[in-house]
Amino acid sequence: MWQQKEITLIQFPRGFHIITDEIIKQIPNINNISTGLLHIFIKHTSASLTINEDADPTVRGDFEAHLNKIIPENEPHYKHTIEGSDDMPAHLKSSILGSSLSIPISNGKLNLGTWQGIYLCEHRNHGGRRKLVLSIHGE
Amino acid sequence: MWQQKEITLIQFPRGFHIITDEIIKQIPNINNISTGLLHIFIKHTSASLTINEDADPTVRGDFEAHLNKIIPENEPHYKHTIEGSDDMPAHLKSSILGSSLSIPISNGKLNLGTWQGIYLCEHRNHGGRRKLVLSIHGE
Amino acid sequence: MWQQKEITLIQFPRGFHIITDEIIKQIPNINNISTGLLHIFIKHTSASLTINEDADPTVRGDFEAHLNKIIPENEPHYKHTIEGSDDMPAHLKSSILGSSLSIPISNGKLNLGTWQGIYLCEHRNHGGRRKLVLSIHGE
Repeated sequence: MWQQKEITLIQFPRGFHIITDEIIKQIPNINNISTGLLHIFIKHTSASLTINEDADPTVRGDFEAHLNKIIPENEPHYKHTIEGSDDMPAHLKSSILGSSLSIPISNGKLNLGTWQGIYLCEHRNHGGRRKLVLSIHGE
Repeated sequence: MWQQKEITLIQFPRGFHIITDEIIKQIPNINNISTGLLHIFIKHTSASLTINEDADPTVRGDFEAHLNKIIPENEPHYKHTIEGSDDMPAHLKSSILGSSLSIPISNGKLNLGTWQGIYLCEHRNHGGRRKLVLSIHGE
Repeated sequence: MWQQKEITLIQFPRGFHIITDEIIKQIPNINNISTGLLHIFIKHTSASLTINEDADPTVRGDFEAHLNKIIPENEPHYKHTIEGSDDMPAHLKSSILGSSLSIPISNGKLNLGTWQGIYLCEHRNHGGRRKLVLSIHGE
């Protein structure tokens, strides 16, 4: 059994945001899947997806702060600068964190660990509304 | 054909550890799959999974040393500090390396390259026993 | 429906290279898939795969420059040095960017965003010809 849908998120400010509930709301039919996988793909090169702790919001702030330290704006070696100082760092961050996630579906539910949430990682100052492709397969 | 099982690893010390043989031991039925994928998911936010060289153990030591350099403990910008100085770096490392792997199954075996092994990346000093979800699908 | 094939790329110099057209040429049968996923796996530990901007070539140059800054050669803490100064950095880069990609297939085509291309990331000075396993499943 396959299902696929494309969704458009609300616009998020630069930073790390939990979208677990939004994703689950979009895939009510996983109730019928005993064993499978959910694949989430972001159709952009300056935002990304990851899984991390969803309890303490300071974790998301520390992600933003530390990635900005590792991948700062205005590095003298950047040549791709025409789209703004936040653009090339956004490309680098998006590849380091990744553009897709695969999560097991077990007994009709996402089989995430207790503290795991799905993060939308917005690396641009004004990234706009991001599009995701959700693909479910299983039996 | 789908199969899925949840396993609990032994406790590993902080660092990078090869678990290829343990994974293969847990999925004897891939012998029956001519074409498919194995998905491995870690249900934690302070440990991760990656694929890298499994021959020379100094590679794993260099992973630990270099990731500690890029993502040190006790950074002044960390606000998520209550769970210990190794906690926030563990969250960052786990997202940078990733929480899941997908590996091709070909003719009843994992189709890894000659030097590729599956690493359990333990980022906490005392991470405990980690849970993985193994999902196999194929034909 | 499953398909799988192993391909060998041409030899690329160290750096980041777009292989989207080469991948698409290798999988003509995705035309018949209305919903599915393409999985691409690289069978090496010193080269990797990622998705990023395919329009402006300076993006790829900036990837090479910035990853060399984060993960330099000849770090005093590296112990895995016998295979050359580019070897241990290549292992680190390959795990940070990742060894596989999963891309949605929708209506017979890869469902990539407008600016997304598939990058072969060659981290060695003389990496040779790299092998990929392409797995397609869908309906």
